[in-house]
Amino acid sequence: VLERLLLPELREAVLTRDWKGLAELCSVIHPSIISQMLVNLEDIELEWATFEHIDPMLRTQIFEYLPEEIQDALVARLPIEELADLLEMMAHDERVDIVKRMDEEHQALTMPLVARAEREDILRLVQYEEGTAGSIMTTDYAAIRADLEVHEALTQLRREAPNRETIYYIYVLDNQRRLIGIVSLKDLILALPSKKIAQIMREDVVLVNVDLDVETVARELAEYDLLAVPVVDNEQRLVGIITHDDVIDVVIEEATEDAQLMGAVQPLGERYLDSPFWLIVRKRVVWLCALFFAEMTSVYVLDSYEHGLFDTFKYVALFIPIIMATGGNSGSQGASLVTRSIALGELGLSDWYRVAVRELLSGIVLGAIVGLIGIATVVWLGHPAEFAMVLILSLIAVTTSGSLVGSLMPLVFKRLGMDPAVASGPFIASLVDVVGIFIYCSIALAVLSKFQ
Amino acid sequence: VLERLLLPELREAVLTRDWKGLAELCSVIHPSIISQMLVNLEDIELEWATFEHIDPMLRTQIFEYLPEEIQDALVARLPIEELADLLEMMAHDERVDIVKRMDEEHQALTMPLVARAEREDILRLVQYEEGTAGSIMTTDYAAIRADLEVHEALTQLRREAPNRETIYYIYVLDNQRRLIGIVSLKDLILALPSKKIAQIMREDVVLVNVDLDVETVARELAEYDLLAVPVVDNEQRLVGIITHDDVIDVVIEEATEDAQLMGAVQPLGERYLDSPFWLIVRKRVVWLCALFFAEMTSVYVLDSYEHGLFDTFKYVALFIPIIMATGGNSGSQGASLVTRSIALGELGLSDWYRVAVRELLSGIVLGAIVGLIGIATVVWLGHPAEFAMVLILSLIAVTTSGSLVGSLMPLVFKRLGMDPAVASGPFIASLVDVVGIFIYCSIALAVLSKFQ
Repeated sequence: VLERLLLPELREAVLTRDWKGLAELCSVIHPSIISQMLVNLEDIELEWATFEHIDPMLRTQIFEYLPEEIQDALVARLPIEELADLLEMMAHDERVDIVKRMDEEHQALTMPLVARAEREDILRLVQYEEGTAGSIMTTDYAAIRADLEVHEALTQLRREAPNRETIYYIYVLDNQRRLIGIVSLKDLILALPSKKIAQIMREDVVLVNVDLDVETVARELAEYDLLAVPVVDNEQRLVGIITHDDVIDVVIEEATEDAQLMGAVQPLGERYLDSPFWLIVRKRVVWLCALFFAEMTSVYVLDSYEHGLFDTFKYVALFIPIIMATGGNSGSQGASLVTRSIALGELGLSDWYRVAVRELLSGIVLGAIVGLIGIATVVWLGHPAEFAMVLILSLIAVTTSGSLVGSLMPLVFKRLGMDPAVASGPFIASLVDVVGIFIYCSIALAVLSKFQ
Repeated sequence: VLERLLLPELREAVLTRDWKGLAELCSVIHPSIISQMLVNLEDIELEWATFEHIDPMLRTQIFEYLPEEIQDALVARLPIEELADLLEMMAHDERVDIVKRMDEEHQALTMPLVARAEREDILRLVQYEEGTAGSIMTTDYAAIRADLEVHEALTQLRREAPNRETIYYIYVLDNQRRLIGIVSLKDLILALPSKKIAQIMREDVVLVNVDLDVETVARELAEYDLLAVPVVDNEQRLVGIITHDDVIDVVIEEATEDAQLMGAVQPLGERYLDSPFWLIVRKRVVWLCALFFAEMTSVYVLDSYEHGLFDTFKYVALFIPIIMATGGNSGSQGASLVTRSIALGELGLSDWYRVAVRELLSGIVLGAIVGLIGIATVVWLGHPAEFAMVLILSLIAVTTSGSLVGSLMPLVFKRLGMDPAVASGPFIASLVDVVGIFIYCSIALAVLSKFQ
């Protein structure tokens, strides 16, 4: 907060290329704020010149806070020796992302210059599939053996701490690197120095498999209020840890993706205002066209009722939009409730029956309530009484079918291995629109032709 | 994971009221799993009997993991002396929530039995308004003076640690309790024992004011990858800290609320399947009726075009649903993009102009693309060529107005101090529906009557 006041000075130092002043300012300002200033420069030449003049240790920290585009631009300009140094110093989970985004030639030139242990670590982490625990874990965790005494463990930690992302949880491994327990640094500090680790460690460790999807990992960590969760392979060997800050990022990213899908936008993967214009158009036009085709069905449905219904009872057509919208809205409601519950892990495929019963009843009740308002309107507008019956029956039918389709579709999508969020919002609304128009026209035709 | 295997045994112990077996199992199973088992019992008598037989220290931990309804039911049954003990032992931020939910009489009976320091702490925290940093902070943080030496600080921490929620960040205060620096436990462990705290502390502390809203607090903590963020009053005195686990909860809760609002559901505040049926109906019916009234306008708009437009050009009515839906969809797209960006703090009110320009252009391009598909349809269905012009003009107009209204409305809502998420999804769709019908009918009437 205080240091934000120094931002203009920092910017001034960069713009006047006062590298000595820059170094001084950098020593007192948090790296994330320096990175923010770099982003605001919006000039890659200047960003590069600044980056070049910051000392390697600090620049690693700043680099980790930069957005991907700028990271990639800087990586492209860095001499490969310096890039190799940068990779060696970076957090293990962050540097893998950089390497993944480099082209093969650049990788082939750079990787041989990275120290062997670090290189092997990168090559191992690169293999994990996107969206799995392995893809966001880091390998710079602290591990000890169970037969150490507390004071020996502390000595080991002191030696290793500068290279560890966190030393607040320390993992206890056996000779095969299998995870057998955990001690927190708090436990270590509180324990008698001569106690054995085996005596003070907790054995009921919350852990995740390396292939588990990141959303489930996030839920586990949030559920148990952990700082980090250990990741093991199929032989229970510790292969990495996932820390709380990465989990917050996952949670935020997932929520953004879901919100965009619910609004019929393919996830942007970037900030809205920073995204290129054509990227946004592309992410939207796919959905807009798909939904347009889906809605096309409504033209045919209406056309088929032209003679016999709209010809005779003109006022029936006036209520098409309101029937459509009400069905769509109740569908969106059901969809957003169920989609979010799935995302939170509260709801699984096996609950489909409970969901269906609940939504069936909700739909009937909601339709009846809205239908009463509809009847009042019909009376007030002076349409015939039998049309009031058409309206309330149609509203009950569309809210019920909307609620059912809206709530069950996300489960169907999940069953098919697709993102349930796709099946909410406009997708459901379009589906329900056409169904709603069909229901309304059928009921109107059946009832009104009887009364004629 | 392993301990989940013990769940049936735990349940068995409870059901057979084998309290000795229960105690043994409880000593090896994580409190959160025991609490899960209690929830699954779905029988408050049995939950209470179990709770009664678990020792006070462990039961405090289990209690903190229970959902609110069960917490409240247990609080109502606990003898007030035991309730006072429970409150004394609980995390400072959690117990405040319990006290807030107790009725006044119960509070008046219980609070005098709570030890004085703890009671004063509760009374202080109770005052902070919901949604502010103060309302989710905890006061059991570790604080030290700057003139201590590292080994003295460690001794102090060892003494206090059992009562502190986290000792991984230690806050350095002056005589007026103003926050002047921070040291991490890692720094302490690594430093020479004879160094002064003042020499090793960081002075550029990321902190938040006690009145700041929780969403912004969450963003600060996530941005800086912190374990906890200190909360200060207007005189810069440290009054509490907010820890990473509470921030994850805030982020998840906000995303759920936004997702529900975007689906036109008032936030439930509970799990979907656990919510009472009538609660869900109530949270939905408000929106459904409000949107129904809004859509009512479409009946009037269509009615006013009956003579002169639909009488003469019947096929025009067939395309009403598809025009409405396309406008609504582009509105939802704009709304979800902007709402999410506001939630992430990427976008502020001052960006409205950039948003407007971007959405205006997007709307035109998207409308033109969808319009070309529309023209193809018209040709294929054999409607007159001038109607193709009506369709593409209308589609461009509705996607543009939809995108503009959808993207700017959340900003308007924010300006008015309301939740921007309200202005996305069905709300926007309904607004855009009516505007879309009006635009379409006007264009159709103007163009077609000219060609007649």
